[in-house]
Amino acid sequence: MIKKGFASDNNAGVHPQVLAAMIDANQGHVTGYGDDVYTHEAEQIFKGIFGDDISVNFVFNGTAANVLGIMAAGRSYNSVICTDTAHINEDECGAPEKVTGSKIIAVPNDEGKLRPERVKPHLQGFGFEHHSQPGLISISQVTEMGTVYTPDEIKALADLAHDHGMYLHMDGARIANAAASLDMPFKAFTRDCGVDLLSFGGTKNGLIMGEAVVFFKPELSNGFKYLRKQHMQLFSKMRFVSVQFKAYFKDDLWLNSARHANRMAQLLKEKLEPIKKVKITRTVEANGVFAIIPKEWTKPLQEKYFFYLWDEETNEVRWMTSFDTTEEDIENFTAAVAKLSENA
Amino acid sequence: MIKKGFASDNNAGVHPQVLAAMIDANQGHVTGYGDDVYTHEAEQIFKGIFGDDISVNFVFNGTAANVLGIMAAGRSYNSVICTDTAHINEDECGAPEKVTGSKIIAVPNDEGKLRPERVKPHLQGFGFEHHSQPGLISISQVTEMGTVYTPDEIKALADLAHDHGMYLHMDGARIANAAASLDMPFKAFTRDCGVDLLSFGGTKNGLIMGEAVVFFKPELSNGFKYLRKQHMQLFSKMRFVSVQFKAYFKDDLWLNSARHANRMAQLLKEKLEPIKKVKITRTVEANGVFAIIPKEWTKPLQEKYFFYLWDEETNEVRWMTSFDTTEEDIENFTAAVAKLSENA
Amino acid sequence: MIKKGFASDNNAGVHPQVLAAMIDANQGHVTGYGDDVYTHEAEQIFKGIFGDDISVNFVFNGTAANVLGIMAAGRSYNSVICTDTAHINEDECGAPEKVTGSKIIAVPNDEGKLRPERVKPHLQGFGFEHHSQPGLISISQVTEMGTVYTPDEIKALADLAHDHGMYLHMDGARIANAAASLDMPFKAFTRDCGVDLLSFGGTKNGLIMGEAVVFFKPELSNGFKYLRKQHMQLFSKMRFVSVQFKAYFKDDLWLNSARHANRMAQLLKEKLEPIKKVKITRTVEANGVFAIIPKEWTKPLQEKYFFYLWDEETNEVRWMTSFDTTEEDIENFTAAVAKLSENA
Amino acid sequence: MIKKGFASDNNAGVHPQVLAAMIDANQGHVTGYGDDVYTHEAEQIFKGIFGDDISVNFVFNGTAANVLGIMAAGRSYNSVICTDTAHINEDECGAPEKVTGSKIIAVPNDEGKLRPERVKPHLQGFGFEHHSQPGLISISQVTEMGTVYTPDEIKALADLAHDHGMYLHMDGARIANAAASLDMPFKAFTRDCGVDLLSFGGTKNGLIMGEAVVFFKPELSNGFKYLRKQHMQLFSKMRFVSVQFKAYFKDDLWLNSARHANRMAQLLKEKLEPIKKVKITRTVEANGVFAIIPKEWTKPLQEKYFFYLWDEETNEVRWMTSFDTTEEDIENFTAAVAKLSENA
Repeated sequence: MIKKGFASDNNAGVHPQVLAAMIDANQGHVTGYGDDVYTHEAEQIFKGIFGDDISVNFVFNGTAANVLGIMAAGRSYNSVICTDTAHINEDECGAPEKVTGSKIIAVPNDEGKLRPERVKPHLQGFGFEHHSQPGLISISQVTEMGTVYTPDEIKALADLAHDHGMYLHMDGARIANAAASLDMPFKAFTRDCGVDLLSFGGTKNGLIMGEAVVFFKPELSNGFKYLRKQHMQLFSKMRFVSVQFKAYFKDDLWLNSARHANRMAQLLKEKLEPIKKVKITRTVEANGVFAIIPKEWTKPLQEKYFFYLWDEETNEVRWMTSFDTTEEDIENFTAAVAKLSENA
Repeated sequence: MIKKGFASDNNAGVHPQVLAAMIDANQGHVTGYGDDVYTHEAEQIFKGIFGDDISVNFVFNGTAANVLGIMAAGRSYNSVICTDTAHINEDECGAPEKVTGSKIIAVPNDEGKLRPERVKPHLQGFGFEHHSQPGLISISQVTEMGTVYTPDEIKALADLAHDHGMYLHMDGARIANAAASLDMPFKAFTRDCGVDLLSFGGTKNGLIMGEAVVFFKPELSNGFKYLRKQHMQLFSKMRFVSVQFKAYFKDDLWLNSARHANRMAQLLKEKLEPIKKVKITRTVEANGVFAIIPKEWTKPLQEKYFFYLWDEETNEVRWMTSFDTTEEDIENFTAAVAKLSENA
Repeated sequence: MIKKGFASDNNAGVHPQVLAAMIDANQGHVTGYGDDVYTHEAEQIFKGIFGDDISVNFVFNGTAANVLGIMAAGRSYNSVICTDTAHINEDECGAPEKVTGSKIIAVPNDEGKLRPERVKPHLQGFGFEHHSQPGLISISQVTEMGTVYTPDEIKALADLAHDHGMYLHMDGARIANAAASLDMPFKAFTRDCGVDLLSFGGTKNGLIMGEAVVFFKPELSNGFKYLRKQHMQLFSKMRFVSVQFKAYFKDDLWLNSARHANRMAQLLKEKLEPIKKVKITRTVEANGVFAIIPKEWTKPLQEKYFFYLWDEETNEVRWMTSFDTTEEDIENFTAAVAKLSENA
Repeated sequence: MIKKGFASDNNAGVHPQVLAAMIDANQGHVTGYGDDVYTHEAEQIFKGIFGDDISVNFVFNGTAANVLGIMAAGRSYNSVICTDTAHINEDECGAPEKVTGSKIIAVPNDEGKLRPERVKPHLQGFGFEHHSQPGLISISQVTEMGTVYTPDEIKALADLAHDHGMYLHMDGARIANAAASLDMPFKAFTRDCGVDLLSFGGTKNGLIMGEAVVFFKPELSNGFKYLRKQHMQLFSKMRFVSVQFKAYFKDDLWLNSARHANRMAQLLKEKLEPIKKVKITRTVEANGVFAIIPKEWTKPLQEKYFFYLWDEETNEVRWMTSFDTTEEDIENFTAAVAKLSENA
């Protein structure tokens, strides 16, 4: 039996068209480390999306994209302001601090979002050498709570950053789901809103591994190729990453996959809402559904479907959908929940 | 036309059986980050090879395997002694220093090999706080000059290390080629000779990306999982790395591939030796051939076949063979060389 | 005119007896870097205070004492939990993160103190590699808000740390003022309460520069001498630091100095309390007085007396007293405040 | 009895005029961390020496001056080329690597000096991301072997550096002895020869602790104040360092001290040369004398006079003189050597 769950969109496999592209690319020899036709093509695709003057750099995973982006955008005495739930704060085992030396300043979130009011009290100590110098504001789009920033919200944060000589970084591990949710091209809610550097993720939307650091300001990419190599993020057989992106962007595979995942999350939410003792806790805007359920349901449900307990105290759980979630998966799962509710 | 060259074994593609295994693994959802059936199987295979009490940890590339191994085996004030040609010294853009903080002490090599006599002058300053504390001896097997350490040579270095309370690390980026060359099981020239930790490489022998840090001393792997994550080397869709190793070890795919590559290097050497003005410069023991050729040949040859100029001064070049090099490739290439020789 | 202010106890000079001891030590040659009679004597004094089995190590400043202590007590993937006002969080320009690689988790303070209830929500994720591993709880004694932990409060935090396999660190930049305030020997509210490592500060109480990292657990000091040297904190002419400590502990110089500073703070508080529009905001337990004053008073007062504005929003200011503050200084300053109040 | 030896110029004490200046500075309160009249005066003195457009920054010790200078002059992927005997390579426990992340490339020395021919083979790999990018050439003036670079030698290295877009750093731990030896003002053999950044040392010539990082290129000092603080090198009671420099430069105290030390070294050499079985091994140009003596002399001599064995194999020893070495010290010591020679 093929097992599927709702633990994370990276528990999913790979889109078959992506694997097919990798097989196609497996011909002859090409220069390693990125100086190959596949990588050049992938770079061109990114330039088509974001503009010719960008710098795009593939790395192994989302943590690396975030960390190397932070490093490129400042020096060790700069600090990074983000939400307490941000991946860079909670889920990277302290990678940003260790690798960049920078202080991460975590502030309370509003349904996963960073609000300018939360940032402002930390925009102080400029020029005072005892204090880490605020250098970067970092947001996640989609947020870790499944919500999606509007362009206006992003623009407000970008303006705040720029007014203080800082940069705005976006962790786009689920940027495809955000684009699908906003129904906008990538550029409209990134570069056009003032984002300066972007971790562009593909792994959570059907790639094996495909993450890129995209710089919209040329000064940020100076020396980046050395930073990438020195931090162990340069792939020798690069064509097998870059060709994935080629497949990803072909015929809107990325968009169809993201739209599907988002739709499945809406379906999940709709099916859950009527069930007694299930309380949806966050606005569902992308491919994640958060809910509080009775403690005693967690174990029997987890036996059949992987998913994470988000908050032990409140028993809030997180269910993620992905490109390969089916309506049947949703039906079966919500039926199991409903059954627990009836028996309660 | 399918182009092949002799630049590096990582310019080659991927063995079709490896890609096939990845497709097989692309079914349903599995837990991310290594707690999946494919990874457990791969770990068991490694334990079958090296012993049940080892710790095996997959990372993204060879640089990471080396660097995280060094980090696990010491603290920042420990130094690492290796040859000047070692990958950790020459080809990692200073990753070991930046990531671990350790000093790399590079000593002259003997056809790529580290000799105890070269190490001994640096085994001093123990207990003296002004001096980096020698902590690790690191060797590459196959060496960067295409030679292969004998078990006795390895044992002598391991003894030297252990006599001084140090560890012996092996960079096994081409360990399969070494095993094929020595005609010995992996364990016979690693753990059995006193190697304490091993970077086990698969990428250069037909995997997309497959490198593992293997610890033979349990104390070395304490906390390693955190170091791996914190240094951006934990793969979310881990099954797609581990299943490659499954295919790699099945029916001796690794050995057949390595033997083939080594044989092609021998063939290349044999075909080149009679050609005038070509001087083979290093003992050919694995899949690399080094030679001095006339300066004016480099460009016309490189136009058709990728390869690297190793030493600008002497015009020594390096030709690497790989699992997919064919006899025809050798024929065509050596014919081109012969033609240059005739026209000279 | 000799100018004095209330900016910081490190704006004060040096106790004359300390300088006299330095002159006494300036005879002949002694081995550098700490293997000298003055340093051995100073170490013995510390052992007399805290027990024979401690390790005491002099460094250049309080930031270094804190940072190297953190480094000795964990690896880069460990996190440190402290208050938001902690010196390691607010005043060291990100030194702990850069130098140790560890994450600093800042939680809200209660009059400068860290409460177990604030720590507990962060004691999670143990064994989970995505999460920084909580390794250290760090408190400041005296706190940055001028309050002093009771032994029971310290013991509660030590127990909490130890129950989770963690260590308790104390930043004792003003430990002498704490001892004077508690009227207890140093050991009674450090080692006896479960503190595992201590930054013992002398600079803020009349030394030129005198800070020591004191370990109460032998396992913490393994290799520390290398960490100190590698992080640029080994003093060549060490005798001139250690002899300061000799003078410091002779005839209770440290205690008399700290008691005096504390008494001056009480006097300052008493003189300020009756003044209209001055609101003392924190319990005065050591040598710091915090108060909210009208915004327009700050500038005229600062022209004559250095002091810091602590909170721009509320116009809370901080006044520190030191070993050389005189009653006359207090009289003059409070008279100036009173005058502003009368004219208001 | 006042004991003196020849171990190191930092085994000496402090010049009485320096201590006297510290006592003078011990009046009233001044702002901490360098914004005080003494520090401003000291900065002005340095500007008088080197030019108004320099940046001068006091740190705690020579290791810190070197390491923070390296950090300011490059990023972690830059390498530093120096001699194998350089302090940054041999005597700092790996501080440059740990703190800056940069690779140190140590090349053979010529009586302690770095020769352009030794540097050139490492000026390669520019733009190649696998290779550390050469960023800095670092020399010691006086060298660790007691020799002194001529201005022409320095200029040649500066030109070589600048031709490759690199900087030239000088470790001037004994720069006063070099100035005395060359009989030239500081600027003539530093800035005027193309040195870009300088570790200016005073500790080895009679200060308690006085080291400065001096930048001759404004772009190097950008953000340096944050780097200094973040790396634990900002002194709170800064006036007590800066006032030492005031005394140091007053009435040529520095020059008289350095000249005296150099003269004592010459005297030592002259007295030793006639002694049988003593072989002076290096040109004596500053305050160090190197000699090979019979192995069995070392112990009896060291019992009365501290000094270091430089090379165990050859039994080469190092004798350093300092500002407080007297002719009588030399007489007594050489008499003891002569006696051993007679008894041999």
